[in-house]
Amino acid sequence: MSQRNGTLEYAPPRPFLGDSFLLDNEFAEQLYHEHAAPQPIIDYHCHLSPEDIANDRRFRSITEIWLEGDHYKWRAMRTQGVTEHFITGKASDWEKFEKWAETVPYTVRNPLFHWTHLELRRYFGIEALLCPASASNVFEQANAALYSPNLSAGGILKKMNVEVVCTTDDPADELAAHLMFAEQHPATKLLPTFRPDRAILLEKDGFGEYIARLGATARIEIRSFSDLLETLERRMDFFASLGCRLSDHGLERLYAAEFTDKAADEIFRKKIDNQPISPKEVEIYQSAILFHLGIGYAQRGWTQQFHLGALRNNNARMMQSLGPDTGFDSIGDFEQARHLARFLDRLDREGNLPQTILYNLNPRDNEVFATMLGNFNDGSVPGKIQWGSAWWFLDQKDGMEKQLNTLSNLGLLARFVGMLTDSRSFLSFPRHEYFRRILCNLIGRDVANGELPAELDWLGGIVEDICYRNAKRYFNF
Amino acid sequence: MSQRNGTLEYAPPRPFLGDSFLLDNEFAEQLYHEHAAPQPIIDYHCHLSPEDIANDRRFRSITEIWLEGDHYKWRAMRTQGVTEHFITGKASDWEKFEKWAETVPYTVRNPLFHWTHLELRRYFGIEALLCPASASNVFEQANAALYSPNLSAGGILKKMNVEVVCTTDDPADELAAHLMFAEQHPATKLLPTFRPDRAILLEKDGFGEYIARLGATARIEIRSFSDLLETLERRMDFFASLGCRLSDHGLERLYAAEFTDKAADEIFRKKIDNQPISPKEVEIYQSAILFHLGIGYAQRGWTQQFHLGALRNNNARMMQSLGPDTGFDSIGDFEQARHLARFLDRLDREGNLPQTILYNLNPRDNEVFATMLGNFNDGSVPGKIQWGSAWWFLDQKDGMEKQLNTLSNLGLLARFVGMLTDSRSFLSFPRHEYFRRILCNLIGRDVANGELPAELDWLGGIVEDICYRNAKRYFNF
Amino acid sequence: MSQRNGTLEYAPPRPFLGDSFLLDNEFAEQLYHEHAAPQPIIDYHCHLSPEDIANDRRFRSITEIWLEGDHYKWRAMRTQGVTEHFITGKASDWEKFEKWAETVPYTVRNPLFHWTHLELRRYFGIEALLCPASASNVFEQANAALYSPNLSAGGILKKMNVEVVCTTDDPADELAAHLMFAEQHPATKLLPTFRPDRAILLEKDGFGEYIARLGATARIEIRSFSDLLETLERRMDFFASLGCRLSDHGLERLYAAEFTDKAADEIFRKKIDNQPISPKEVEIYQSAILFHLGIGYAQRGWTQQFHLGALRNNNARMMQSLGPDTGFDSIGDFEQARHLARFLDRLDREGNLPQTILYNLNPRDNEVFATMLGNFNDGSVPGKIQWGSAWWFLDQKDGMEKQLNTLSNLGLLARFVGMLTDSRSFLSFPRHEYFRRILCNLIGRDVANGELPAELDWLGGIVEDICYRNAKRYFNF
Repeated sequence: MSQRNGTLEYAPPRPFLGDSFLLDNEFAEQLYHEHAAPQPIIDYHCHLSPEDIANDRRFRSITEIWLEGDHYKWRAMRTQGVTEHFITGKASDWEKFEKWAETVPYTVRNPLFHWTHLELRRYFGIEALLCPASASNVFEQANAALYSPNLSAGGILKKMNVEVVCTTDDPADELAAHLMFAEQHPATKLLPTFRPDRAILLEKDGFGEYIARLGATARIEIRSFSDLLETLERRMDFFASLGCRLSDHGLERLYAAEFTDKAADEIFRKKIDNQPISPKEVEIYQSAILFHLGIGYAQRGWTQQFHLGALRNNNARMMQSLGPDTGFDSIGDFEQARHLARFLDRLDREGNLPQTILYNLNPRDNEVFATMLGNFNDGSVPGKIQWGSAWWFLDQKDGMEKQLNTLSNLGLLARFVGMLTDSRSFLSFPRHEYFRRILCNLIGRDVANGELPAELDWLGGIVEDICYRNAKRYFNF
Repeated sequence: MSQRNGTLEYAPPRPFLGDSFLLDNEFAEQLYHEHAAPQPIIDYHCHLSPEDIANDRRFRSITEIWLEGDHYKWRAMRTQGVTEHFITGKASDWEKFEKWAETVPYTVRNPLFHWTHLELRRYFGIEALLCPASASNVFEQANAALYSPNLSAGGILKKMNVEVVCTTDDPADELAAHLMFAEQHPATKLLPTFRPDRAILLEKDGFGEYIARLGATARIEIRSFSDLLETLERRMDFFASLGCRLSDHGLERLYAAEFTDKAADEIFRKKIDNQPISPKEVEIYQSAILFHLGIGYAQRGWTQQFHLGALRNNNARMMQSLGPDTGFDSIGDFEQARHLARFLDRLDREGNLPQTILYNLNPRDNEVFATMLGNFNDGSVPGKIQWGSAWWFLDQKDGMEKQLNTLSNLGLLARFVGMLTDSRSFLSFPRHEYFRRILCNLIGRDVANGELPAELDWLGGIVEDICYRNAKRYFNF
Repeated sequence: MSQRNGTLEYAPPRPFLGDSFLLDNEFAEQLYHEHAAPQPIIDYHCHLSPEDIANDRRFRSITEIWLEGDHYKWRAMRTQGVTEHFITGKASDWEKFEKWAETVPYTVRNPLFHWTHLELRRYFGIEALLCPASASNVFEQANAALYSPNLSAGGILKKMNVEVVCTTDDPADELAAHLMFAEQHPATKLLPTFRPDRAILLEKDGFGEYIARLGATARIEIRSFSDLLETLERRMDFFASLGCRLSDHGLERLYAAEFTDKAADEIFRKKIDNQPISPKEVEIYQSAILFHLGIGYAQRGWTQQFHLGALRNNNARMMQSLGPDTGFDSIGDFEQARHLARFLDRLDREGNLPQTILYNLNPRDNEVFATMLGNFNDGSVPGKIQWGSAWWFLDQKDGMEKQLNTLSNLGLLARFVGMLTDSRSFLSFPRHEYFRRILCNLIGRDVANGELPAELDWLGGIVEDICYRNAKRYFNF
């Protein structure tokens, strides 16, 4: 007890990452342990490799499964003062791991600190704090564990109680891995997601080459906008035949300029002919193709996802040496509301607004997104328009709490389809646990405060819905 | 006690909606029960029907008083998956109520959950949780209570200790109800508010017809901008004669382009002649009329209100079938700061800046609004420029706490004129209680933490000021 | 105990501003008292007068040291309804102080309330609450204390354990005070900061006169853009010779338009010739000069600071009577992300990106700023790109907590260079204490909750780094 305060004795600190981690009261603990934790995982949006799953990949070291491709960790290491040699360069697995272990004690209060230790516990049973002193032991223990089939790609899915995985796939992909997996594992769901960004972002380098490749996959020579649309329709049919239930788009914002198909066609042909395109033409083309895609999704009963607001590839020097998605993206401040409203309204007027999930990267837009939903919920499906779980930079305790609180205040939390990992790593599934603890804690805290009645069955049922049943029903898995 | 934690025993949950609802400590309870709760209500901005008040309307059912016209509930029901038939359609009072009762358990953590049960308690004495199982009883009990004169429009104002009601009225209104009420109830204040949106938003449909109707009310044929200004002046005089002390405007943002009256006149005439108007012309016209109105308000000692930032009528299909204000508006992301500063500065330079209340709909603008006040507070009146209470979507615990905290940090909370309902419903007065509890809790929490001295008289006086006396003085009621 | 709750007994309120002020648990108290409080102060950005320090100024009264030049207090007094006579006018020291004492009880929950009483305690040992009843005593006690050499400018720096002070200086300044002080106090650091705003903002009045004055200081006749750059280089060398380690810029946003030196030269000459300049030309000129300055900073190993987002001089009437920086600035809502990324990227591509600190005034941009850092951290220096501590309007508990939490979540808090006062007043040093308490509390709270392990040495070391060692290393003091 601190005599300085003259108050009640302080409680001793709760154990780090203990059973009651993130759970501040007994009701929250009950909600989590009895209702949330037992639910299977539906990871309806991630970037896992379908090949790794189909091939039941084994990993050679914790460096390979943990550090390769994880640009969150790379950014932290660069900020820590680690040079590229130990991040994306030619250093050995141990050298890279050692540098990461040096960085971890400096990630205090960053989600990486929680994820690191949660993942070490849940996958490897390692309770040590990772730091230079423990690095060697952790490296050896983890590598040893990775030799067992429990921690192959498939072993992990089983261990983590994952029922559905939706990968993210280009329309030009043949989906060979999905095909192979579906034949071998009829009971488990490994489903593709249709992500046609490269057909949309016509100002990007390589657009023409991409269109040619897309046409080759579909065996169509794409010469016009209508050829392109027809090709995309065929690819959607093929994706649907493999159980695809979602599309996804990564854009700075939505596009809803006035357009005609004729104008879109002229712009498309100009681009294919390598003629220069104005920003206004880009806007018209993108408005046109997104509209037609939306109709295609609606007709197939798919859910369209929009990940909006990233400012990408900010470091030209590193873009040239490492390429995209290597840790040089950040949060943009684009105007969102008007474009979003127009885009959704146009599809709604056509009677072809699909189920939609909107994800914002800038939390300043939380309220814009959360209130946009209500404009287009039409009573046809509970929670038809969804506001996606806190994404990317926001996928941490503060970001999730803000998303959950804002959704609660401005919409119906109880109809939320919940968490997804959006991850490239097989070690990210504990983020579902993290989300579930936070969710249960917010509800439990309201109960403790007298802001909700202490009715466990009812609130436990809502928790189960958000963790599992809402997604299962909404996506029709 | 949870053994998992090894900490102090958990407190049992506080009772839902109990006496200490939203009050986390003893000081907060004292502030609320002894200082806030006894204050009368000054509802200086609402959308209650003056006819209902003048006629002391009785309500046929809880459906009529509670669900008709409440687009908060409508949005929730649409999100829940209820079809329009049971929301705005021809379903019976009972059927609509039943659908609402089915929705309520899904509104957990939404302000509707609190409002619903607070209103059932405060007006009807019903403590049950509304859900399908209780729906029939609640419907019957509430309807029975509504037969008594205690719950007529006038009965409610008395029961809720409402001292002043300021309705929201079009300059073209004859204010017959206000006239009638004033003659019959000289002691109670039912005052009109001057809301000339339809004379400002010249790009909206029906502008010409509106101007004709406005002219007819004032018996002036409005052919020019100066005719319009003269008409509005006369209507202001008439409103003033009935005790009007405020104006109000609903705009995406403020307008402060360079203008001349001559340019505004030409634009006005073009519009009346049904010629097309450019966005730039709209901006000029709106800048001109808002400037002249501001001078008119200053000269009458009125307070001008600006509700800024809504993105309205986003769903064209529903706009066509139900009209505006039916639950299809949301939060916009407009640029606010520069326009706001220029507009206020222009009036200030003229020596004609009226008392002003600024309300923002997007909470990302909280700090812009909160710091704008200080630029134009000139020492003439305490809190001359006010930042309005959390509005519309933000009128909930999180929204209010953010507004109160930001106002505290960036301005003088103690000079705040406090809460208003902005509501169309006679059942919304408990929102004053809600606000007062939150206010007392924030102050009480600071005292408990040692961030404020535990001086009840002083802090209690500030609470009384914010709940009642500041508004009474500021508006000169 | 409140029987209303049926819960645990309430703790009695903690004493106002007691030892555990802002510290909610024992671990936080230990972190603060054992690790944070003993650290010296490095005030790497402030607006103290170097003349005052060099001359070891004595203050005639608390009014002079406390109220003159403090536009935070002025804004509060104007909001309170105090007329300008008692703020910036000719009222006596006592009259002004009395008006401030009347205002203080209305600043409840504003940082002024804390700062006021913290400063009375830490400098004068006065524990009374300032209000009309105590005003006379406080005035006399404080004035008496100011007669002692302990509270001269130099006495204060010693009393407050200030190791480094970086003032903010115009390139046209001769830095006579810095020179004199350096000769007399070789052990203490009073360093200039290079703030070339007036050479950048060419649309401001008096640009030509300023350029002439700058040239006179450097003994160069500035006729061209290259003359200007050469002059600035020479001034940088002179500043560097006096120990300058930082530059600073106050801008609405960054500028990174395409430019050529030739275009910048033409625009500069037009401006010097009093020809009109378009907004696009302003953008080109500013982009050019900021780029060249950045290279100059990089070559000298300096850190460049950018204070972005203020909307200045909003009240034209008061600007005319009192000039700039008198309390009529507020928070703007400018687009930040894209310009910031382009600006930093351009310097990075040149291999000349200096250490950089970015400060935003609008907290809606917190996440944009916090994630921008990671795009340009290259492993060369820990925390090379920094997000500055909560600034100006945000320099209060909520603002600091948000900055610290967002930085924690999106970057490496442990590499943060920490607090600065940015103040014009010698009485502002307790803001370092304020910051340190808040920092320790956030970490202590995480420990108490089981979100961090209770390891005092490690976390104490991080606290010491943030309070002192990181800045010392980063700036190479």
